[in-house]
Amino acid sequence: MKNPLKILQDAQSSEILLRLKDGTEYRGRLKEIDAYMNMILEDATEILDGSPAAKYSEIFIRGNNLLFIKPDASEIL
Amino acid sequence: MKNPLKILQDAQSSEILLRLKDGTEYRGRLKEIDAYMNMILEDATEILDGSPAAKYSEIFIRGNNLLFIKPDASEIL
Amino acid sequence: MKNPLKILQDAQSSEILLRLKDGTEYRGRLKEIDAYMNMILEDATEILDGSPAAKYSEIFIRGNNLLFIKPDASEIL
Amino acid sequence: MKNPLKILQDAQSSEILLRLKDGTEYRGRLKEIDAYMNMILEDATEILDGSPAAKYSEIFIRGNNLLFIKPDASEIL
Amino acid sequence: MKNPLKILQDAQSSEILLRLKDGTEYRGRLKEIDAYMNMILEDATEILDGSPAAKYSEIFIRGNNLLFIKPDASEIL
Amino acid sequence: MKNPLKILQDAQSSEILLRLKDGTEYRGRLKEIDAYMNMILEDATEILDGSPAAKYSEIFIRGNNLLFIKPDASEIL
Amino acid sequence: MKNPLKILQDAQSSEILLRLKDGTEYRGRLKEIDAYMNMILEDATEILDGSPAAKYSEIFIRGNNLLFIKPDASEIL
Repeated sequence: MKNPLKILQDAQSSEILLRLKDGTEYRGRLKEIDAYMNMILEDATEILDGSPAAKYSEIFIRGNNLLFIKPDASEIL
Repeated sequence: MKNPLKILQDAQSSEILLRLKDGTEYRGRLKEIDAYMNMILEDATEILDGSPAAKYSEIFIRGNNLLFIKPDASEIL
Repeated sequence: MKNPLKILQDAQSSEILLRLKDGTEYRGRLKEIDAYMNMILEDATEILDGSPAAKYSEIFIRGNNLLFIKPDASEIL
Repeated sequence: MKNPLKILQDAQSSEILLRLKDGTEYRGRLKEIDAYMNMILEDATEILDGSPAAKYSEIFIRGNNLLFIKPDASEIL
Repeated sequence: MKNPLKILQDAQSSEILLRLKDGTEYRGRLKEIDAYMNMILEDATEILDGSPAAKYSEIFIRGNNLLFIKPDASEIL
Repeated sequence: MKNPLKILQDAQSSEILLRLKDGTEYRGRLKEIDAYMNMILEDATEILDGSPAAKYSEIFIRGNNLLFIKPDASEIL
Repeated sequence: MKNPLKILQDAQSSEILLRLKDGTEYRGRLKEIDAYMNMILEDATEILDGSPAAKYSEIFIRGNNLLFIKPDASEIL
């Protein structure tokens, strides 16, 4: 059995997109992430219903609300 | 008692379909999965109400939101 | 104190009906089940509001969403 | 501190009524129950909004959805 | 740090009122309670929206749905 | 790393205001609190939508439903 | 793997903004925070739908309801 979390550690300092359980999305540079998927994003944009809603130079996001992470947000189709 | 998770490990590198608790579905190639059912999908399509909604070259999905996994998505009737 | 889970182990390879917390039901042959009630069903039918909604030759269902299991689905009245 | 679970063990093979968190009720003969309140009911009737909705000769109910159990269902006023 | 649960043990055999997370209330004589706040009530009345909805000579209530307990229900203002 | 719970222990026997996850608020004298934030309030008032809804001479509140506690309720602006 | 929680410890005594799972936001000076993200805020303002709704000289917030923390609230764009 492999370790899917490693892809998240490797994504540190690259731009990611994440979605929380309530549907809110954040796009930003992943500064740090731990085993509980707690994260710090830099230069983050909050996205509601597909539109930018707020900007944060730095934000701590609690991992237990996470739905998914797209490691390289620059590739979104 | 057997180990149902083994079918998921065996499904690595084949195409799967999964549904999350909120009804969102993802279809893609299972790259990695761990004991918490955290997964990495490649060439994934997000499906909302039966229609493709987004595409991701690579996506990390948190296992605790999982409802079901269909190991071989090419067989869907 | 007895072990109700044993009935589920004994139900392996027989047809079962299960309902998830969101009301979705699955009927199929129980291939494997573990102590967390994670299951693999074969030749499964998804049932929404009493009507067949999809068919899966094989499906992995996460145990923590389970509401009930009817071990011998051929007896439903 | 006493052990309220003992009343449930003593109720084995008598008729009980139980309600789940979603409001569904089941009435039947308690065949087995474990420390997680997982149960097997025999000759069970599912009750929705006070009316019988389905019958099951045998059903496994996951304990973590339980709201309450009335040990002797024959006494309901 | 004190032990608030002790008040509940002391309330055994007196009349209590409790409210569950879904708003349902039960008033009855507390027969037993354990460290998980699982309880047995005797001569219990179920109260919905402030009105009696059902009566149970004995009922087991799962502690994890509990919102609050009023130890001496005879004092309600 | 400090210990935010200590402020709650220090608040024992002073008047507090607390809000539960469902929005209900209670104002009363904190008699006891444990590490799980289970509490006993004395002379408590239940507040719904900003208005007093009920009074309890003594009430046990389960900690896992807690949203916040204002330690000194006499200072509310 | 780094430690994202450290940014929160470093934020002690600076102004932060946090959002809970129910959407309520609090802005205030972070006095203390522990490993469960339980926090004490000083001079806190509760924000509902973007507008100030209440003020608290001191408030204890339970960590398990946390969605995100913006460490330096003075930088919000």
